Amino acid sequence: MIFKDIDKIRYMGPDNRDPLAFSFYDPEEEVFGVKMSDYLRFSIAFWHTFKGDGKDMFGEPNVRRGWSSIKDEMTLAKIKIDGLFELCEKLDIKYFCFHDRDIAPEGETLRETNRKLDEVVGHIKDHLKDGKVRVLWGTANLFSNPRFVHGAATSCSAEVFAYAAAQVKKAIEITKELGGENYVFWGGREGYETLLNTDMSLEIDNLGRFMKMAVDYAKEIGFTGQFLIEPKPMEPTKHQYDFDVANSLAFLRKYGLENNFKFNIEANHATLAGHTFQHELRYARINGMLGSVDANQGDTLLGWDTDQFPTDLYTTTLAMYEIALNGGLKPGGLNFDAKVRRGSMEEKNLFAGHIAGMDTFALGLKAAILLLEEGSIEKLLQERYSSFSSGIGKEIVDGTVSFKSLESYIIDRKNIFPEPSNQEYLERLVNWAIANAAR
Amino acid sequence: MIFKDIDKIRYMGPDNRDPLAFSFYDPEEEVFGVKMSDYLRFSIAFWHTFKGDGKDMFGEPNVRRGWSSIKDEMTLAKIKIDGLFELCEKLDIKYFCFHDRDIAPEGETLRETNRKLDEVVGHIKDHLKDGKVRVLWGTANLFSNPRFVHGAATSCSAEVFAYAAAQVKKAIEITKELGGENYVFWGGREGYETLLNTDMSLEIDNLGRFMKMAVDYAKEIGFTGQFLIEPKPMEPTKHQYDFDVANSLAFLRKYGLENNFKFNIEANHATLAGHTFQHELRYARINGMLGSVDANQGDTLLGWDTDQFPTDLYTTTLAMYEIALNGGLKPGGLNFDAKVRRGSMEEKNLFAGHIAGMDTFALGLKAAILLLEEGSIEKLLQERYSSFSSGIGKEIVDGTVSFKSLESYIIDRKNIFPEPSNQEYLERLVNWAIANAAR
Amino acid sequence: MIFKDIDKIRYMGPDNRDPLAFSFYDPEEEVFGVKMSDYLRFSIAFWHTFKGDGKDMFGEPNVRRGWSSIKDEMTLAKIKIDGLFELCEKLDIKYFCFHDRDIAPEGETLRETNRKLDEVVGHIKDHLKDGKVRVLWGTANLFSNPRFVHGAATSCSAEVFAYAAAQVKKAIEITKELGGENYVFWGGREGYETLLNTDMSLEIDNLGRFMKMAVDYAKEIGFTGQFLIEPKPMEPTKHQYDFDVANSLAFLRKYGLENNFKFNIEANHATLAGHTFQHELRYARINGMLGSVDANQGDTLLGWDTDQFPTDLYTTTLAMYEIALNGGLKPGGLNFDAKVRRGSMEEKNLFAGHIAGMDTFALGLKAAILLLEEGSIEKLLQERYSSFSSGIGKEIVDGTVSFKSLESYIIDRKNIFPEPSNQEYLERLVNWAIANAAR
Amino acid sequence: MIFKDIDKIRYMGPDNRDPLAFSFYDPEEEVFGVKMSDYLRFSIAFWHTFKGDGKDMFGEPNVRRGWSSIKDEMTLAKIKIDGLFELCEKLDIKYFCFHDRDIAPEGETLRETNRKLDEVVGHIKDHLKDGKVRVLWGTANLFSNPRFVHGAATSCSAEVFAYAAAQVKKAIEITKELGGENYVFWGGREGYETLLNTDMSLEIDNLGRFMKMAVDYAKEIGFTGQFLIEPKPMEPTKHQYDFDVANSLAFLRKYGLENNFKFNIEANHATLAGHTFQHELRYARINGMLGSVDANQGDTLLGWDTDQFPTDLYTTTLAMYEIALNGGLKPGGLNFDAKVRRGSMEEKNLFAGHIAGMDTFALGLKAAILLLEEGSIEKLLQERYSSFSSGIGKEIVDGTVSFKSLESYIIDRKNIFPEPSNQEYLERLVNWAIANAAR
Ligand SMILES: [Co+2]
Ligand SMILES: [Co+2]
Ligand SMILES: [Co+2]
Ligand SMILES: [Co+2]
Ligand SMILES: [Co+2]
Ligand SMILES: [Co+2]
Ligand SMILES: [Co+2]
Ligand SMILES: [Co+2]
Repeated sequence: MIFKDIDKIRYMGPDNRDPLAFSFYDPEEEVFGVKMSDYLRFSIAFWHTFKGDGKDMFGEPNVRRGWSSIKDEMTLAKIKIDGLFELCEKLDIKYFCFHDRDIAPEGETLRETNRKLDEVVGHIKDHLKDGKVRVLWGTANLFSNPRFVHGAATSCSAEVFAYAAAQVKKAIEITKELGGENYVFWGGREGYETLLNTDMSLEIDNLGRFMKMAVDYAKEIGFTGQFLIEPKPMEPTKHQYDFDVANSLAFLRKYGLENNFKFNIEANHATLAGHTFQHELRYARINGMLGSVDANQGDTLLGWDTDQFPTDLYTTTLAMYEIALNGGLKPGGLNFDAKVRRGSMEEKNLFAGHIAGMDTFALGLKAAILLLEEGSIEKLLQERYSSFSSGIGKEIVDGTVSFKSLESYIIDRKNIFPEPSNQEYLERLVNWAIANAAR
Repeated sequence: MIFKDIDKIRYMGPDNRDPLAFSFYDPEEEVFGVKMSDYLRFSIAFWHTFKGDGKDMFGEPNVRRGWSSIKDEMTLAKIKIDGLFELCEKLDIKYFCFHDRDIAPEGETLRETNRKLDEVVGHIKDHLKDGKVRVLWGTANLFSNPRFVHGAATSCSAEVFAYAAAQVKKAIEITKELGGENYVFWGGREGYETLLNTDMSLEIDNLGRFMKMAVDYAKEIGFTGQFLIEPKPMEPTKHQYDFDVANSLAFLRKYGLENNFKFNIEANHATLAGHTFQHELRYARINGMLGSVDANQGDTLLGWDTDQFPTDLYTTTLAMYEIALNGGLKPGGLNFDAKVRRGSMEEKNLFAGHIAGMDTFALGLKAAILLLEEGSIEKLLQERYSSFSSGIGKEIVDGTVSFKSLESYIIDRKNIFPEPSNQEYLERLVNWAIANAAR
Repeated sequence: MIFKDIDKIRYMGPDNRDPLAFSFYDPEEEVFGVKMSDYLRFSIAFWHTFKGDGKDMFGEPNVRRGWSSIKDEMTLAKIKIDGLFELCEKLDIKYFCFHDRDIAPEGETLRETNRKLDEVVGHIKDHLKDGKVRVLWGTANLFSNPRFVHGAATSCSAEVFAYAAAQVKKAIEITKELGGENYVFWGGREGYETLLNTDMSLEIDNLGRFMKMAVDYAKEIGFTGQFLIEPKPMEPTKHQYDFDVANSLAFLRKYGLENNFKFNIEANHATLAGHTFQHELRYARINGMLGSVDANQGDTLLGWDTDQFPTDLYTTTLAMYEIALNGGLKPGGLNFDAKVRRGSMEEKNLFAGHIAGMDTFALGLKAAILLLEEGSIEKLLQERYSSFSSGIGKEIVDGTVSFKSLESYIIDRKNIFPEPSNQEYLERLVNWAIANAAR
Repeated sequence: MIFKDIDKIRYMGPDNRDPLAFSFYDPEEEVFGVKMSDYLRFSIAFWHTFKGDGKDMFGEPNVRRGWSSIKDEMTLAKIKIDGLFELCEKLDIKYFCFHDRDIAPEGETLRETNRKLDEVVGHIKDHLKDGKVRVLWGTANLFSNPRFVHGAATSCSAEVFAYAAAQVKKAIEITKELGGENYVFWGGREGYETLLNTDMSLEIDNLGRFMKMAVDYAKEIGFTGQFLIEPKPMEPTKHQYDFDVANSLAFLRKYGLENNFKFNIEANHATLAGHTFQHELRYARINGMLGSVDANQGDTLLGWDTDQFPTDLYTTTLAMYEIALNGGLKPGGLNFDAKVRRGSMEEKNLFAGHIAGMDTFALGLKAAILLLEEGSIEKLLQERYSSFSSGIGKEIVDGTVSFKSLESYIIDRKNIFPEPSNQEYLERLVNWAIANAAR
């Protein structure tokens, strides 16, 4: 046992104030007929939770973990996998996500690296056998190693492009082997530091070629998981090519790849791009491309990716609202791409962080479903756009009008006064739902 | 009657979804022994509510008001005053705030302007007689008229400085005459557009001279209301001298004015300055200078002062937490320096906006008091700093140590490991309070 | 004559410090063989220069213009047109841009409005006859009138959609009639204030329908000017659908419109979206869609559209660098979508602002061409990507590789060390060009 | 020799495009009578240049240094010192700055750490003997070690406070021993992550106590160097107590410390706080507290401290303008608190980065002095405020007026029209100076 001092986390109800018990997340509770755990497909992000050491740009590692005395890197790799499954069990979380380089160390060559990776993958497969936990998605770390300093698929070096291709090939293979339901592309350094040295045209074309090869290879080996792009506007680079969902959609459409990908939307990446989390979810949803979610939150007064555990009820309520309207996220999920704050350096904080996120999503789910069941927001929405259901509005939607016919229709009309939009009231309705969610 | 279609707003309880009824604000309800209306000294901001016309930088006026057909400006001025008192009565709001130029039009000279002002002030006094409504604060508009293009007390023109001084003199007089409990200084254009043409040293010294004269004049006429500075970092100017509370405090301390002023803290101004609202409240509070609040909210993804009605429960909960720890705000209050969104152009939206703000503050108050009564946050805080209550910590606080003695104490110590700070859990406690506030 | 006190502006050379003379803009000067005025197709923005009155969200109109005593709105409209042509002549500017509603007042119905518009258009045509000045682009103001409070093509009201269609129809007609070389779509309120009341899917589909009808109508009447979309992320709305170039490109590609539009890129809109101006120019350029430029600048420490005259040499140098690589902007140009600062309220400031912009672009042009002629930046760029010109890199570009073949190529390679990117040196080269541009 | 492949850097004149030669920095050149090297007291920041390894939040160390094979930490420490002096000599830089923990490793106790420190200090003293290079300032690293996770002087732990005090005691001692001309306090983690666990009042009082003890101790040991506070608003913490100059000034004034400190102003910290670099310089200057400068630059479109080498001519021109008006910075200087971009991983890039910074400051100096000698800006400034030199304006400045007397003066005046502020023209003057600086 890795986390010796912490027992299985229990649901204690809305009065609970114990940091190591759930107040709102009850996996068995039904929310208007659906089990909470079916809505909330939580996932642990292996990197933050098992590789995060508390380091920041101004501070040394400071976390306190039971495994810190282990020196042999393969032994340590496997112990962390054991810890992962224990954490899943204790938190009642059914999924996890990983980068290839999180779970196993690198060797001198890719061949050697792959061998180490295979060894850890074997260890994971043993844990997966009982089917209690599954892989939400795998991905390749194409940003940490110095070879990726100028990007991977968009590097100025053809060698690096080749290396990245081979690495992603292997990452897709092991994701398939582990039964991963999705595969994520986050272009950590696919972007630029300065345009003065950047052939943006070649770089983006190369990214298109890379993605096409990935799609081809998945088909070739029969990997049927969903491919997901995770946009982020900046950091570590000055500008990242997958800036936001819309930008990435322009890219996919340019290279004819829009049917092969959906999006993995991270809350903190949305806000860094100047959007709300809900905006990015909505925009992906109406384009049929909402695939999965990196469930965290940022601080809109800070300009970097803080990857905090989600504790904002507005964020989770409105996210679950979009997800519900999307008919859920399957095969995607809610991956806690979140790290405990540097001051939360003990193992109990790792648990407390996840519990905070799960509870906040549970309450957000209840508020969202309450809003949908109550129905005012959707009803007001339909009334608001009702002029497009008949008459000239319907003709517009049906495409049977032209500038000329619309001119004839309107040219002598006076007093065109739109109805009020009632934003203040709509925001009150959200508060009503949050205040009543736990009642 | 001005708002003919709208009756007195009633409290209907937490299930209420009527936009024109309260769900959480029940003035008579006691929150742990104190009447809600004693905590929540709401105030109407005359400017947004009675002068706001929906105009923005890209759009023409669009509000729909019963008084829009009235052409005579003095008649209109008085009708709006009638509307103000009607609104207060219908919303159960006991205070209002005003700029001199909101309530009455300008004339050719200041003498003429003052005469018009006195006429409207007389009309207000009639309304005030029954004591149901009071003036929270008055202020002078030193930013709209073209003469203030380069500032008022910090204008490059001595004439403008003199005009501003005379205008503030009168504004203090009428605030006194109307029984105003505070007087606010918001330095709308006291700042600069470019340093290339700015004698910052002279300008800030002049601001100091101006404030000193204001203090002297208040004493002279026996105005005992609290003087308040309202910081804002920018907009309309590139840089405003009252950037934030700390900056303004540096100013007050420089000119020996710190005992003559407190702060009026606006939520949206805090976030424009890169601070949370709670930060500004806290910082003012621990300096003994938390005077009053402009209760609105901004959008941290937008870079201008949106002055929205407060509907964010975190904002109101944490604000009321600070205010409670401040022992309330008296003689200050919660002034809705907020405008309905441009799409909320009807009179019912004016009501709905205020109701949204009042309900959100009522719920926030309940959550804040719940947090304080439950006590975990304050208890954890005391434990966290307990090392300063005895031993070396107490000596530090008592000032009986030096670098030398502290070196002797620590020079051979190993393993200094701070305790975790548990941010994720603390944020959950706030959610616990919000989720349970209405139960 | 409108601007009685100001003569034709002369070029006086780099030592000049007269605010009303050019220091760097000499239309006849050849920059490596091309006349400066051929590169720099400057245009006056009618709205800021002839409709801007100095008003801001906190201040009343304050500009001082010769025409301010004129009351009759049609007389005034025509006098401003006279002023426009006089300004063009005195500043040696060959183009102007306009919104339909800038140049003529509205009537009760669109029919009446169009009649007034036609009258002013006739007056403009008289001025155009001698061919000295031309229309860079026309556009429709679909954001000022209260009817557009919720958008135009994306309004929730079918009536408003119809009105907008008819208005754009007319705006295209008059742009054609006036020989306009482009037509611009800026979606001022095509976006949302809150997602709680927004059917984003319908709204964006409607925008697609609207654009399609515009394309059809232009074909129908034989308007051959270039259609341009001007992205802006926010302001006045919370979120605008044409957020940035990439976002708008996703839109155009979705509706099959990418061959019918290019982009009009505004510097200040780029920075509001979190991009550099150069980024937006580059991204449009490599997609073959760089059409025209709104030549202004913002203040990246302020969060709203300040629309300042461009005085930053980096902005203009790097912009002209992209434009040169684009083979110029024809039929587009450099439109000064800029307003003098509120403190610059006199007519001479209007001139000084344009001169500042023109001089800064002239110097930027010289620096950009110097950089291109010197060649280091382009040479370093080619070296940097040379691995894609032969061997495995060429195969990647040619599309003859796969993940498998790339894996074979790389799997046993060690020590893949990218070359440094030399950003500091490249930035020095830009300084070298700026410092030497005027020598 | 550490940097074997790089010779002494030479001045080659404005046509130079060699990355390893100066184009504008000629230490012997006189700028209006003063030697350039007397104005530009450049300093190397030991941490970035000798400890920076290229690591970022998403990437591993990647720099390529000759010393990377050395394992013994004290040997390595001394070799880096040798490298420092070699770099100073080759770049013609006369100063350096250091944190205690940059130059020597930590031991188990502070006593042991101090012993190691003393050993390296001895090695530095050998290098200093010939007087060619000097210490601009020393400081203590109170943020990297895990013990400082919750701050140092503002930690919740009295032990940590004591440790910090003892560490600063030693850092002041060695700064004195090395002849340091200043001592800097940068409160890296003196702030908070969340107010929910923060006793802000105690923490700031403790910071006041700490600073007082530092002042006392310096007096006690006869350290006469200037104490400097370096403000920064955030990062690594959510909120730092030394947010900006004004905030820090409020602090100093509260605790009666304003005569014991000046400011070390970093360009990138200014912009993170929402100010221009010039603003912070100006504000410190007019308060008599401009002490020294951390000469770098940020990217205002990115929200973190990029600490880039200064290559923006506006930044350096306007900074040198303020510094010249301050009568220089002595005993302060221009410390390159800057790191080469992660892609600039070779030793030659270290040189190229410093050269870029030095050249940009040299050109900025020439432009600034040109502006001052030409005199238009200062002349316009004096005219602008001339109304305060006589009449009512002089009375205002002299303090002989009151609100009453000013009212009498102004109450019947009409038509108070301020003069225009001519921002566009003033910005052109700066361009004029930049364009002519190298002529
Ligand atoms: Co993520
Ligand atoms: Co993230
Ligand atoms: Co306010
Ligand atoms: Co405000
Ligand atoms: Co524009
Ligand atoms: Co603009
Ligand atoms: Co620094
Ligand atoms: Co920095």
